[in-house]
Parts: sequence; structure tokens; C-alpha cells
Amino acid sequence: MSNNSAYKRKNLTPMLKPRSVAIIGASRDPSKVGHVILQNYINSGYDGKIYPVNKSGDDILGLKTYKSISAIGSKVDLAVIAIPAQFVPEVLDECGRAGARTAVVVSGGFAEVGNVDLQRRLTAVAEKYDMPTLGPNCLGVMDPRSRSDTLFLPTYKLSKPQIGGVSFVAQSGAVGSTILDLIVGEGFGLSKFFSYGNAAHVDEVDIMDYLVRDDETKVIVMYIEGVNRGRDFFRIAKEAGRKKPVVVLKAGRTAAGQAAAHSHTASLAGDYETHEALFRQAGFTIAHDIRELLYYAKIFASEPEPSGPNVAILTNGGGAGVLTTDAIAATSGLKLASFSRQTLDSLKKTMPPLVNLRNPLDVAGDADDKRYGDALDALSKDPAIDMVIVITLFQTPGADSRVASKLIEFKEKSDKPLINISIGSGYTEMHKIMMESAGLPVYDSPAAAAESLSALLKFYQFRSRK
Amino acid sequence: MSNNSAYKRKNLTPMLKPRSVAIIGASRDPSKVGHVILQNYINSGYDGKIYPVNKSGDDILGLKTYKSISAIGSKVDLAVIAIPAQFVPEVLDECGRAGARTAVVVSGGFAEVGNVDLQRRLTAVAEKYDMPTLGPNCLGVMDPRSRSDTLFLPTYKLSKPQIGGVSFVAQSGAVGSTILDLIVGEGFGLSKFFSYGNAAHVDEVDIMDYLVRDDETKVIVMYIEGVNRGRDFFRIAKEAGRKKPVVVLKAGRTAAGQAAAHSHTASLAGDYETHEALFRQAGFTIAHDIRELLYYAKIFASEPEPSGPNVAILTNGGGAGVLTTDAIAATSGLKLASFSRQTLDSLKKTMPPLVNLRNPLDVAGDADDKRYGDALDALSKDPAIDMVIVITLFQTPGADSRVASKLIEFKEKSDKPLINISIGSGYTEMHKIMMESAGLPVYDSPAAAAESLSALLKFYQFRSRK
Repeated sequence: MSNNSAYKRKNLTPMLKPRSVAIIGASRDPSKVGHVILQNYINSGYDGKIYPVNKSGDDILGLKTYKSISAIGSKVDLAVIAIPAQFVPEVLDECGRAGARTAVVVSGGFAEVGNVDLQRRLTAVAEKYDMPTLGPNCLGVMDPRSRSDTLFLPTYKLSKPQIGGVSFVAQSGAVGSTILDLIVGEGFGLSKFFSYGNAAHVDEVDIMDYLVRDDETKVIVMYIEGVNRGRDFFRIAKEAGRKKPVVVLKAGRTAAGQAAAHSHTASLAGDYETHEALFRQAGFTIAHDIRELLYYAKIFASEPEPSGPNVAILTNGGGAGVLTTDAIAATSGLKLASFSRQTLDSLKKTMPPLVNLRNPLDVAGDADDKRYGDALDALSKDPAIDMVIVITLFQTPGADSRVASKLIEFKEKSDKPLINISIGSGYTEMHKIMMESAGLPVYDSPAAAAESLSALLKFYQFRSRK
Repeated sequence: MSNNSAYKRKNLTPMLKPRSVAIIGASRDPSKVGHVILQNYINSGYDGKIYPVNKSGDDILGLKTYKSISAIGSKVDLAVIAIPAQFVPEVLDECGRAGARTAVVVSGGFAEVGNVDLQRRLTAVAEKYDMPTLGPNCLGVMDPRSRSDTLFLPTYKLSKPQIGGVSFVAQSGAVGSTILDLIVGEGFGLSKFFSYGNAAHVDEVDIMDYLVRDDETKVIVMYIEGVNRGRDFFRIAKEAGRKKPVVVLKAGRTAAGQAAAHSHTASLAGDYETHEALFRQAGFTIAHDIRELLYYAKIFASEPEPSGPNVAILTNGGGAGVLTTDAIAATSGLKLASFSRQTLDSLKKTMPPLVNLRNPLDVAGDADDKRYGDALDALSKDPAIDMVIVITLFQTPGADSRVASKLIEFKEKSDKPLINISIGSGYTEMHKIMMESAGLPVYDSPAAAAESLSALLKFYQFRSRK
């Protein structure tokens, strides 16, 4: 964590919402990164101007192609650079002279392989023109609203996510694309995606500063290996934590991991405990692996503020109810709700006699949409219940898509956090996608569900204390 | 934990490998449990005798049907009872008189809903005839080799698992079917499945005793809510732990969970810490949720004894390598391997110049089957490496099914534990199924992979100390 210069905000809007983009290193060869990026801009429905640039100047994919960015004759909002590392500083300088507003350098071969001087030259050029430059050694940016997308991954490997409120920031390109892939699989919506690689100019500080002020971003989720400009980072982190939920996964929590991080992005991972303490001070939610990162992102993206710590569990499997009770009781901040008199009276009328009227409420393996609906009706009205976990084991005889529809119906009108636990393979996965797409978060383990509710509660408690 | 009578082993073989089965409560109504069970025996290819029994005596599904078990005129190995609770003791008595060797009572409505006396009568009948009786309030048994299967779940909800070496024991029917569903999804093989419900006669002690001696069972995996006959349980547990890996998930680790468990199967969950200490003494691997249970089952089912604690990481994504390094360094018992001189020399010849020759070995996003093969070739020969984690992020440009095939090729000849981490959606899932089916365990998080390797190492260390 160092802090060498006065803080200056970088305007990243032209990078995310470019009216024009130059792709430098555009190629006819489908195996080249410069081809994939150009093809993606053409196919995505991006409606700004696209300028392929390469040395030959021969037209590519039916588009007029330029020998250099200067030859375009107008200033572009975004220059995407996909050429061998040694040519990058010179070409970036030309971008600056031609008035490009921002740049993304996807090329690798800089500090991460020991070419520190080459990277310094890149930084110097970006600073000289005051031109926000992302990378090098990164995937770049994606904004599903503007359809600006510099990711050079074939679509059969990575489908495009839906538009939503979660912005992801990943230093590492591979972790970034893994997270994007999981987002698509989970069916939840993306606001912005940043993979910033070596952080030669634009770093996590600039990105966080931008996302704090971005109205399209409801939740900020970050994977970071090292933190530059510590003082600025934590100043903006504190502001971010007050404004919106921030979930962070920091690699290098062990000495061995720190050494590996340094070898990967030339990051100085720093002391993990110090970082973790500062993250907590800022009100961040700390994840310890990619699965947790997604769990937390999901709950913040969909759930309202809970009115308190009391959780009701509704289940069609007794054992799963017991395991979830254990998870709630073992998770800091959460309590098992006691049902109010009125709820018990209401359940007495609607539940079959064998159902034990207590929390967890085990409505048994033959529970259908009617029984789930009756139970949810009672639980959702109970002021002693702040949050609801509904377990649906789809292997049991009563659970089917009508049960899933009933949960979605309640989710849509619920003013309490309401989440689902479903565990299983094919038949379960089908219902999971159905519920997730309708904004009902589905967890595959009681512990994950409990920890996510706890993170939700803690965020709002933190915010109300400040 | 109580211990009221002298220990007597129960012979469960006729329940798992019945030459004849009577289905009492067989029905023409497809919505009835007695219909589903009969249909399953007919469809499964079970080659013993099937005797439907119901009061009317009218033929069902083309099979001659009997008015009572006595009317069959020969002794059956297994009587499956699916009739209302109040009639069960009397019918079980008739089974005893007719010489049935074992019984499975799937019906609910006993101690779990307060009908303690009814359950006592059931126990007394089973004891009177010395007839091992499973249940009540359970799914029963499944043995893919004999195709004996009392589970009353439709096949679109739950596909049948492959034959294999893992035996699962679950007190709860819903948790049991969830686990079975996950087994099918993960593509690994089953030896026996037991859901024993209220444990009125056959309990976890009898089942464990049977599985310890069952040569088809390589790994025992148990979900339990309460332990009966504590002294017998831990005597047999100690024998089990010396003979084969045992993975246990015990519900009721909190007071709230214990209360919920009591309400579910009328189990006295007992003091969790005491149980956990005794499990550890017996050399059991302790899981804390269903996901962990599966992770551990998978590694014990497929991996050989590791020669030591040193783990090599091979990855096509730097960030995932860092996170996995953190997970290894943070997991008790594991160490990050240092590559030997010979390995470094060999890698120097085969890896591209940008690859950093260290552990984790990051072979970069363009790594293809050739590069993975060259790296694995070097790592698998290194005596300083005891276990190998191969990370394949299938979102990256080089990773495809040829990479997965290459890993399977190495897996087949590897004498070291070798596991995979793949994280992602559709394209990843496809390769995950491919690798799992070939016996290469795939994990979706670095922490899960590290904890599983640690459990593997600890089991063999425990065994060699004894």
C-alpha cells in the first residue's frame, strides 16, 4: 500500500459507454484476439462507430479498416489495443495524439513476466495524455447496457449475461471470466464488468470510485490480488461501504498465496489481516472463495433490508430443516424466530395434523403448492419473523414446478428477505434456474444461505450505525 | 447414548440381496407408495421373485397378488410394508409367522408424530421373530447390484445411480434422496443405500456393522441425527475406522438443531462435542454439510493413499492458482510442494518462455492438451510431489475436451492422488461430467479441493498409526 501522488478522479464513462471504438490489432484471422473482439462488437448489437485498425489497412469483416488510429480522422471514445507488448507504448502514444479518450490494453507481456520497464513506459504515456488506460494483461470491460465488450472469449464458452445491478471487478482475467460464466449460469444480471490486469494506470481505486457514483450499479463485487494507493483505496472504500453493498475476495491471505499473487500480476499482496480489518471498517462483506463471492452478490442484488435477525425455516424435508437450524444457530447475528400466536393459529387451520407447528416448519414430503402457499401466507404476515428460508427438496413426491411458481408469487410480494435452498441434480437444477431467473435466490447449502442472510443483515446494521 | 442390552449382530444380507420380496400394500393406484415400489421392482430388472400383497387379492401390474403374506406359501427374504401405521404391528407379526427373513417398513406415523407405543409394538414384534426390520418412516434400501430397491420416488425425480463402492446411510428419507440425487449428478457409483428413519429395530449400529464387513463397500458415508446404543456404536465405529474410510455428517450440532432433530425422528441428538470427539477417535472424517459429505465421499472413492503432504498445483488461470495456493496453505496438514531440480529442467524444455517455473505452475490461458500433458508428465514423476491439483478454467481460450481427455489419460496411470478444479456453467459442466464419469474427481472450489485432500491424507495417517 503506497500513496505517491495526489488523488485525481479518472473518467471511465467513455470506456463503458463509448460512442466510438477503435480496435487496434483487428485481424482477419479468427484465432486472433483482435478478430474476436471486433466480431463481438459487430455481433453484440453495439450501436456506436466501430473502427478496425491494422497495419495492412485491408478491410476486415466488411468494415472499412484504418492503417492507424490517426488515419480515422476523428477522436474515439475507446481504443482497444490487442498487439504484441513491445509495440504497445508507441501505439498508445499515437492514441493519445489522436485524441482517444480512454484505452484498454488486453495484451500481456509486461510486469507479470518481468517487463517492468515496458509497463512503466505504458503508464507514462497514459499519464502524459491523461487518458484512462485499463490493463495491460487483462480482459477489459463489459457493459450489457451499452454493449461495449472487449472480452476475447468465444460465445460457446461464455454466454452473455443479462442486464442487472451487480458490477464485478476482477484483477485476474481468468477469475473474471469464471465469475462471468457463473453469473450467466446463476441467471442474475450484470451492470459492469472490469478485468484490470496489471493496473498500470487505471486501478481498483479508480474503478471503485467510478462504481460508487454509477447509478446502474447496486452492488459492487471485487476480486483483488493487491491494493495500490492504500490511502486512496480505503478513503473511497469507506465512501463505497456507506453507499452500497461491497463484496470483496482478496487473494493472498497466506504467505504462499502472496508469493503466488506477486508472480501472477506483480501485485504486492500486503498483509492480509490489515486489509481484512480495513475492509471490515469500510463495511465490506468479505468472501473467502469464488462461490462465496457469488452467494453474497446474489443476496445483495435481490433482497430488501431485513427488519431484524429472526429467521423462519419452511421445509419439506425434516433432515434439511435440522441442518438449516444448525446453520442459523451457528451463524453470527442470526436467530431462529419464534412464531407468534396468530401464526400458530393460522397454521393450525391450514396444516395437516401431522405437521409439527414449530420453527423449522416441516410441511412434509407430500407438501404441494397449496400447503407451501398456506404456510408462506402465515409466515409472511408474522411481525416476529424478519427473514424466511424456504427449503424445497424436489426429490420428494409433492415438490414440482407449481411449488416453484408459488414461491415466486410470494417472492414478488414479499417485503421480507426470502430465499430458497434446493439441493440436487437435473430436476432440481431446472427449478433452480426458474426461481433464480425470477429473482428468488437459490442456495445449495444451509451454511451458504445462513452466511448470506447474516451478511445482508450486517450490511444494513453497519449502514444504520454510521 | 444408551446401551440396554447385549450386542447381537443382525443379518441384513436378505434385505439387500433378497431372492424374493413381498410388497405389502401393493396397489393399482399409481399415486400410492405400494404401487411405486412394486413398479420399481418390475422395471429395475430385479431377477428374484416378486409377490404383491394386498387385502383385495386382485392381480396388480400383471402379477399374481396375495391377500396376505401367509398366502404366498413360501418364506420371503424381504417384506416391504407400505400400509397405514396402525395396521403395521399386526402385519409385521404375520410376516414373522410366515417366516419372512427381513422387513422394511416405509410407513410413517410412529414416534415421529408421538405414537411412541405403536412404535414399541413394532420393535417388540421384530425382536420376537429376530427379524431385522428397517424403519418405520423411511425410504428403505437400494442395492444397484442386486437391484433391490424400496425407494418410492418417481424416476424423473431421481435417476438410478451407477454401481460403485460408496455406501450411504441416512436416517432422514429426504436427506437420503437428496444425497442419492447428487450422487447421480456427480456420476459416481453406489454400493448400498440405507434410509433407516425412526430406527425402531435396525439402527445405525447394525448398518455400520454390516457395511464394515461388506466387501462391496469401500467407503461408508453416514448422515445421522441421533446415536442409539452409544457403546456399541463407538466399538463398531473404531473397527470401521480402521478398515475403511467413514465420512459422517451429524445433525444437531447446536441446541436449536438438537431440538429440531428430536421433533423430526424422535432422536436424542446428544452432546455434539462428545460425538465429534468420539468420531475423531474412530478416525472418521467429519462433514458439516451435505456438500462436504459428497466431496469427501468422492475423494475416498477414487483416490489412492498419498505418499505425503506436498501438493503441486497446475493451472491455466493465475488468479485461481493464487486462491488454491491460499487454500492449501490454510488447510491443516497440507504443504505446497517444491519442485525438484529434474522437474524444473524438464519443464524448462517443454514450457513456453513466459511460464514461471514455480508452484503453482501457471501454464497460461492458451494452454492446450499438449502443454497440460507436458506439465503433468514432469509433475507426476517428481518424488517431491505427493498429490496434484489440476485447475482447468474452461472459459480460457486453450481449454477444451482434449484437455479433459489428457487429464483422464494421466488419471488412469497416476499412482498419486490427482484431482481437478473446474468452476463455471454449461461448457464447464459438460467437461465436469466427462471427467467425473472417468473417475477423476472434480471440485468447484479451491477450499473444497484442499479440505478433501487433507481428509484423504489424515485417514491414511490415522490408519498407519494404529
